[in-house]
Amino acid sequence: MLRLTRRYPFAASHRLHSDQLSAEENARLFGKCNNPFGHGHNYVVEVSVSGVAEEASGMLTRREDLDDFVHKKVLTRLDHANLNTDIPELENVVPTTENLTLLIQSWLAGAWSEFAGGNLQLNRVRIEETGRNSFEVKG
Amino acid sequence: MLRLTRRYPFAASHRLHSDQLSAEENARLFGKCNNPFGHGHNYVVEVSVSGVAEEASGMLTRREDLDDFVHKKVLTRLDHANLNTDIPELENVVPTTENLTLLIQSWLAGAWSEFAGGNLQLNRVRIEETGRNSFEVKG
Amino acid sequence: MLRLTRRYPFAASHRLHSDQLSAEENARLFGKCNNPFGHGHNYVVEVSVSGVAEEASGMLTRREDLDDFVHKKVLTRLDHANLNTDIPELENVVPTTENLTLLIQSWLAGAWSEFAGGNLQLNRVRIEETGRNSFEVKG
Amino acid sequence: MLRLTRRYPFAASHRLHSDQLSAEENARLFGKCNNPFGHGHNYVVEVSVSGVAEEASGMLTRREDLDDFVHKKVLTRLDHANLNTDIPELENVVPTTENLTLLIQSWLAGAWSEFAGGNLQLNRVRIEETGRNSFEVKG
Amino acid sequence: MLRLTRRYPFAASHRLHSDQLSAEENARLFGKCNNPFGHGHNYVVEVSVSGVAEEASGMLTRREDLDDFVHKKVLTRLDHANLNTDIPELENVVPTTENLTLLIQSWLAGAWSEFAGGNLQLNRVRIEETGRNSFEVKG
Amino acid sequence: MLRLTRRYPFAASHRLHSDQLSAEENARLFGKCNNPFGHGHNYVVEVSVSGVAEEASGMLTRREDLDDFVHKKVLTRLDHANLNTDIPELENVVPTTENLTLLIQSWLAGAWSEFAGGNLQLNRVRIEETGRNSFEVKG
Repeated sequence: MLRLTRRYPFAASHRLHSDQLSAEENARLFGKCNNPFGHGHNYVVEVSVSGVAEEASGMLTRREDLDDFVHKKVLTRLDHANLNTDIPELENVVPTTENLTLLIQSWLAGAWSEFAGGNLQLNRVRIEETGRNSFEVKG
Repeated sequence: MLRLTRRYPFAASHRLHSDQLSAEENARLFGKCNNPFGHGHNYVVEVSVSGVAEEASGMLTRREDLDDFVHKKVLTRLDHANLNTDIPELENVVPTTENLTLLIQSWLAGAWSEFAGGNLQLNRVRIEETGRNSFEVKG
Repeated sequence: MLRLTRRYPFAASHRLHSDQLSAEENARLFGKCNNPFGHGHNYVVEVSVSGVAEEASGMLTRREDLDDFVHKKVLTRLDHANLNTDIPELENVVPTTENLTLLIQSWLAGAWSEFAGGNLQLNRVRIEETGRNSFEVKG
Repeated sequence: MLRLTRRYPFAASHRLHSDQLSAEENARLFGKCNNPFGHGHNYVVEVSVSGVAEEASGMLTRREDLDDFVHKKVLTRLDHANLNTDIPELENVVPTTENLTLLIQSWLAGAWSEFAGGNLQLNRVRIEETGRNSFEVKG
Repeated sequence: MLRLTRRYPFAASHRLHSDQLSAEENARLFGKCNNPFGHGHNYVVEVSVSGVAEEASGMLTRREDLDDFVHKKVLTRLDHANLNTDIPELENVVPTTENLTLLIQSWLAGAWSEFAGGNLQLNRVRIEETGRNSFEVKG
Repeated sequence: MLRLTRRYPFAASHRLHSDQLSAEENARLFGKCNNPFGHGHNYVVEVSVSGVAEEASGMLTRREDLDDFVHKKVLTRLDHANLNTDIPELENVVPTTENLTLLIQSWLAGAWSEFAGGNLQLNRVRIEETGRNSFEVKG
């Protein structure tokens, strides 16, 4: 079993704020990330796939096929977006990187059969929010 | 002559848009950076100072003194800010990283005497917008 | 199950030497790390916590809470320290990064209830000693 | 159980091409990596070993012993090599990084007893082909 | 005067060998880089332009215009190429990174008027051959 | 004129303290770097040489020649050393990275004729003390 990981950068903005909480509680929980006009990050999302390499090609998958799939399902939605206003799935959800990681995982897992047959698994989704912060979920 | 450079990360959001230009021209010039709801970056600003080390301390300056000065003049204004709405000096200016670099240079140079005597110069201000993009101006 | 990882740099010095071994055996085992006056590193410690995000906040934990916990239990003890002389737990132990990793894990695991309830686990402790060397232990 | 990981850079060239496939299929599968004269990379191979630290030394293994083993079994074969022509084991195999990862794992696992007794396991082999691409296999 | 730097990765292979020198002298000068079948690198080329930002756009240049120019003049020629056989200008020249740096500078400087008017200068070309090695030439 | 830069890591420890100053002044100036038992860093020193490439070899200098020179003059003295006790030139000097940079420059410049003829200049010496701190001096 081999695992292949590819990294994709994207830039986005967000504001951490929950309508279910008071202004004080929002300020306490999210600190400066609760600034009303938002802020942003250069995120990197890593997508890992696992399986057995095909004998003829010696590859788990063509790089371009994985890249096309991730671009279509993830990057066209998130790159240069405002996570609070541009992403319908985050409308009633605080756009923390925790929730963003789960959303990307669900986008990829939900459309997996468009990309791969049974021989390849979605193994992990991992996001770096800054150089000091990362989040990951198993496939 | 020695040069000391310190790096300071901050996160901010911006939208590239000029009121002096048509919607078409804004779209052509700024591409996806013209998205109305903005996007963001993990910026890194590097501040370089040059001069001669003091003999007793063997240092150009105390690290904490430089850090305090950069925090007060730059980071408290920019970190977790929306560059279009939170920074008065950028109100009528497109918040490109070019203009941001010049603004930081002017903030530091304009208050330099609060930080250092004549023995230290502001040598350079440099910003990394992403891992692929950087901008710099001499002090 | 999500995993959050945060990175914390610290600087320290150490000398690798065991009183249980002869001078020759110390020299053979530890090479230039046995230099009597010690040497140092910029270490990075990564702390990973795993669990389920809270629905209201969308977060596994407030970043500041985790940072405060790691500062109090780990960084105030290790940053700018001499590992041979400043850390009582390493008095009779060679301060290899293997032993340092186990020590940090025990500090965090032993005080875990001060930081988190049953919904968050200490998942992993990992140290980078240099850019070429890393050590990790499960939570 | 601790895990130690060490990183080793090497430079090599390869051409992705399979004699079992038509020219068209080779071009489709491998794209510009099928260029007849080859291209190259700065690879990094990471070798992870796991086990329990020895009490006297506080180490899983002497760094130099692991380095010598990896140099002898892996780096002397691969560094500054052309993977298509210089590596007998890749003669009838497409030198993808998937196959290279498996080959390194087999070299290390096959000679493991020359390096370590039963207390240390080969835990993982991981290769970075570029900053965006990595491959790994359990030990 | 502002300076903008953009980074572009490419992968290529080369063999260091001079027909003007004996086999012994080639081996002595170039060491393992003289291996007859070649080896390769992940190069990064940095292109720096300097000038004054346009007032309306706040930019030195559109990122896409610079990227298109560098792709057309440099990357389409070098990416996934064998520097010894695929680049006519290097036919009688040892493809050291010194010579590659000068070649890229001449490609960009020679076609500069296709990209920019008199307000922008080619300020610097810099290549990273590995993480330990870089070369640069003023524009 | 080309410039070649090579990077060399080394690990060392130091304590910032001046015998010319009171305990209070030492504490104020150097903060936690004044800890009596010292601390350490993974330093990286970058050495830049500039000149014209030789026509036959296409190189400014053989990499091995520069590496041997830097190892002999710098790294054998500094790697795994305690800067306060192991370096005679720092006996009466605070071992700040400012002073270390000047010392390395003087070591290399003072022995330059052992390494290169008149066609190569020592262009710059630069040290990274941590990922946030660097110091440089012209050759």
